[in-house]
Amino acid sequence: MNIKKHWVDYIHSLQDNICAALEAEDGKATFVEDLWVRPEGGGGKTRVIANGNVFEKGGVNTSAVEGVVTDAMRNQLKLPTQYIDKELSWFACGLSLVLHPINPFVPTVHCNYRMFELYDSSSKEGGQEGLIDRWFGGGTDLTPYYLFDDDAIHFHGTYKNVCDQFDASFYPTFKKQCDDYFVNYHRNNERRGIGGIFYDYQRPSSTKDVDFWMNFGQGCGNAFTDAYLPIVSKRKNFSYTAEQKHWQEIRRGRYTEFNLVHDRGTLFGLRTNGRIESILMSLPPTVRFEYNYQPVAGSEEDKLLQACLNPLNWI
Amino acid sequence: MNIKKHWVDYIHSLQDNICAALEAEDGKATFVEDLWVRPEGGGGKTRVIANGNVFEKGGVNTSAVEGVVTDAMRNQLKLPTQYIDKELSWFACGLSLVLHPINPFVPTVHCNYRMFELYDSSSKEGGQEGLIDRWFGGGTDLTPYYLFDDDAIHFHGTYKNVCDQFDASFYPTFKKQCDDYFVNYHRNNERRGIGGIFYDYQRPSSTKDVDFWMNFGQGCGNAFTDAYLPIVSKRKNFSYTAEQKHWQEIRRGRYTEFNLVHDRGTLFGLRTNGRIESILMSLPPTVRFEYNYQPVAGSEEDKLLQACLNPLNWI
Repeated sequence: MNIKKHWVDYIHSLQDNICAALEAEDGKATFVEDLWVRPEGGGGKTRVIANGNVFEKGGVNTSAVEGVVTDAMRNQLKLPTQYIDKELSWFACGLSLVLHPINPFVPTVHCNYRMFELYDSSSKEGGQEGLIDRWFGGGTDLTPYYLFDDDAIHFHGTYKNVCDQFDASFYPTFKKQCDDYFVNYHRNNERRGIGGIFYDYQRPSSTKDVDFWMNFGQGCGNAFTDAYLPIVSKRKNFSYTAEQKHWQEIRRGRYTEFNLVHDRGTLFGLRTNGRIESILMSLPPTVRFEYNYQPVAGSEEDKLLQACLNPLNWI
Repeated sequence: MNIKKHWVDYIHSLQDNICAALEAEDGKATFVEDLWVRPEGGGGKTRVIANGNVFEKGGVNTSAVEGVVTDAMRNQLKLPTQYIDKELSWFACGLSLVLHPINPFVPTVHCNYRMFELYDSSSKEGGQEGLIDRWFGGGTDLTPYYLFDDDAIHFHGTYKNVCDQFDASFYPTFKKQCDDYFVNYHRNNERRGIGGIFYDYQRPSSTKDVDFWMNFGQGCGNAFTDAYLPIVSKRKNFSYTAEQKHWQEIRRGRYTEFNLVHDRGTLFGLRTNGRIESILMSLPPTVRFEYNYQPVAGSEEDKLLQACLNPLNWI
């Protein structure tokens, strides 16, 4: 089996399936596709949706990109000594999505599933023949504006079910990694939302081989629509006030702060000549920044804020 | 003369004068003051204005802060070898303002003037007695949403006049440094606005002593109201459309990107336990991020964008 082809095909089929399900849920807007080519190698399919019945802005993007390992990457990759002086090349393929609904009772969601490969360019034929490293990463996290325990339990429960089919330690570990990653450190460690799962640098081993990690990524990817769309269906027709929309836009400010100040993927993309519009599609459509905004203690807004300051165990 | 006291007094009087002039120009909103204390030493006066006739959001902040030189600062300061193993302390005092007007024909403006001192803590009494380094920095830059040549010429001309009273090389040098600083590198080197002046690490010398740099900072600080308010007066009653407001909010997105991704002062503050609300008062009140937004070629919006991509010489 050609692992690379298998993963790329999966990512593209996942993109198709998710986009179709989201369009059906929205009932009005459709995705517009921009194909792009990376001068250094590879490219992507950016699919964006805007001004729908449900989704104010969103993107479901895939990319399959490759290149030579630059000095800047070499430091970041922390290569084993035997590869320090070798010419290396890399390949990465993944799907990344962010959806910003109009209705403040429908949560924003983000997910990303990816595979990374590293090759010794001097080996016969390079590419797959010279593979020296491979890892998987991904995750899905939810950013509600109002906290419904049912929704949080359903979302976390869906990913726990997937995780438990692979390893009972995964959900607690990856749930904590998610809580520890989407953090606005400059805001008293306030989380972006109520989390989900997050894993990275998962290398195939004798007990968990490449098929295992590929199947796990696919299991998580396939669970996205089950985890998210029932929440959308349930909340999308709730009526809301201008004050509730205002609160959503304040929270979107925190989302913007996290993505521009802390998110490793965003900053890596901005510093390495990534396709800017595909990277920054994650930013919310309308955002408010107000000086020292504080929700009323004990309000529904405060309840959400407290769950972001002190992550809860939903299962 | 106690230089430190002289500078601190100046910064506070500048804050008072600018706030009074802005309130008079606004005619409705007044500044609200938050005094804060920094646990590690010193504090500040944050003054914010919101929902005025003219100003949708803004702040005119001062701070006078001090502390011991930490290892992280030591690396950044690039200390001369004789100080590498000594216990050092520092002091910084400055004013920082950002104003976001409601009307898209009134430009956003930012300015900052500051002095930094470094002391050998082991010398007699520490503090002023042990002064080993001192530098001045500052600047003022304009971020219009629509380009009026008259306004740009007036703004740049005001600072050129101040600069020319001190050194004929200052305006061209500091104008270029400003164009080179407020850059969204991830946006094809698009500037945040049409610039102004920017200078940093100016150390007193035998030909330009501490009085010279203090007077220069004061000259620039005092010129703020002359540089900015005539533009506000001229444009604040222009009528505008929803489309023009929309464009302002798109450009405010670029302002947000610069401040959160690139601005050294903002990032330093976020990483060093600065007072978050005072630092992030610079962010615009309402912001839009749209996928791949492009103004119509040849439109007034495009004219502004082109001036940000290719800085012009206004004098």
